[in-house]
Amino acid sequence: MSENLYNHIAKFIPLVREDFAEIMLFFDSQSVKKKQNLVEEGNVCRANYFVEKGCLRMFFLDVDGTEQTIQFAIENWWMTDIEAFNKGKKAAFSIQAVENTEVLAITKYEMERMLGTYPLMESYFRQVYERAYAASLFRVKYIMRLSKEEIYDHFSGNFPEFVQRIPQKVLASFLGITPEYLSEIRKKRMTRKTK
Amino acid sequence: MSENLYNHIAKFIPLVREDFAEIMLFFDSQSVKKKQNLVEEGNVCRANYFVEKGCLRMFFLDVDGTEQTIQFAIENWWMTDIEAFNKGKKAAFSIQAVENTEVLAITKYEMERMLGTYPLMESYFRQVYERAYAASLFRVKYIMRLSKEEIYDHFSGNFPEFVQRIPQKVLASFLGITPEYLSEIRKKRMTRKTK
Repeated sequence: MSENLYNHIAKFIPLVREDFAEIMLFFDSQSVKKKQNLVEEGNVCRANYFVEKGCLRMFFLDVDGTEQTIQFAIENWWMTDIEAFNKGKKAAFSIQAVENTEVLAITKYEMERMLGTYPLMESYFRQVYERAYAASLFRVKYIMRLSKEEIYDHFSGNFPEFVQRIPQKVLASFLGITPEYLSEIRKKRMTRKTK
Repeated sequence: MSENLYNHIAKFIPLVREDFAEIMLFFDSQSVKKKQNLVEEGNVCRANYFVEKGCLRMFFLDVDGTEQTIQFAIENWWMTDIEAFNKGKKAAFSIQAVENTEVLAITKYEMERMLGTYPLMESYFRQVYERAYAASLFRVKYIMRLSKEEIYDHFSGNFPEFVQRIPQKVLASFLGITPEYLSEIRKKRMTRKTK
C-alpha cells in the first residue's frame, strides 16, 4: 500500500481504504536508477507514473541533439507522455530519473480497467489533469514574459528545496540557459544575500 | 440544445439525449462581440466556456503592455483560466473573442452540481483536460525547438483554415513575431507555391 498515493487521492475525492487496496492492484512498483529512462522519445510509452520517492524529468532532443528539460515530477506528481500513452503513439518526450526514484506505474489497459471499476477515480484524474494543464499554461507565460534571471528567481523562490536537489546541468536545461550562466546567476544571488 | 456540445461529449462518453437535455440546463448561452473580453487578467474568472461558433483567444499582458496570445479556441474547444476558475483567484490571463462568438458558459457552482449529478461527465472532462495538457506540452516543445518560421509552417500546415480566419496581428502575437515579419514569411511561402 502506498501512503503517498492514498493521501494524494484522498485530497481530491472521498476514498475508503478497502477500495484503495483494490485500486493498488492495478499498479506495479518500479525502481528506477538515476539517469535511467522510463520513456524514450520515439519509442512506446508503456505507463503513467506516480512518483513515490525521487524525481523524474521530461525532456526532448533539440535539433542539435541537446536535451531540453520541460517538466519535473517529484513526490506525489504524475508524469507520462500523455498523448503517446493514450493513443499508443511514439513518445515525443523522454522521461528520466534525476535521482534514484520509486514509481507506481499503470499501463493504459489497467488504467481503463481501473476507471471502469472505480468511476470516482475519473474525478481524481480530472483534477490532476486540470492542475497539470494550469501549470503548463503558467509555464508558457513565464517562458514568454520573464527574463532567464526572473524565471530562476521565481523557481527558486517557490521551490527552494527542489533547486538544491537537482543537478545544475538539468536545472540549466529547464531554464533554457547554459550551466555557466546559471552558475553566474547563483553567485550574484549569493553575494546579494550575504551583503 | 447544442448539437455541437452533444456530439463532442458523445465522442468521449456514452450519453443519452434525455441526460444531455438535463445537462444543458447547467449552461448559459452567451454571445460575445468581436474584441469583447469574456475574462480579464486581474479580475474574477466567472465561467468555463465551450465555443459553439466563432473563436476565442487567451492572452496576457507582457511587461511592456503588449498582448501575448498563448491559445486559441474554435468550435468544440473549451477555454477558461482553469486555475482562476477552480480556485476563485484573480485571472492570470484574459480571454477575448477574435470574431463574433457564441459560447456555452458554466460557472464553477453549476459545474460542481453537474458533476455531482452526472458523474459520467467527470470522464468527459478528464479526457478534455488530458488533451488540453498534451497540446500545451507540444506547444512548449515547439516554442523551444522550432524557429519562428517553422512554427508558422507547422501551424499553417495543420490548421490552414484557421490561419486564414484569424487577424494577422493576433496570429503574429501567437507566433511571438511582429506582424511585419509574419507578412514577410507569408510572402515567401506564397512565392514558393506559385513557382
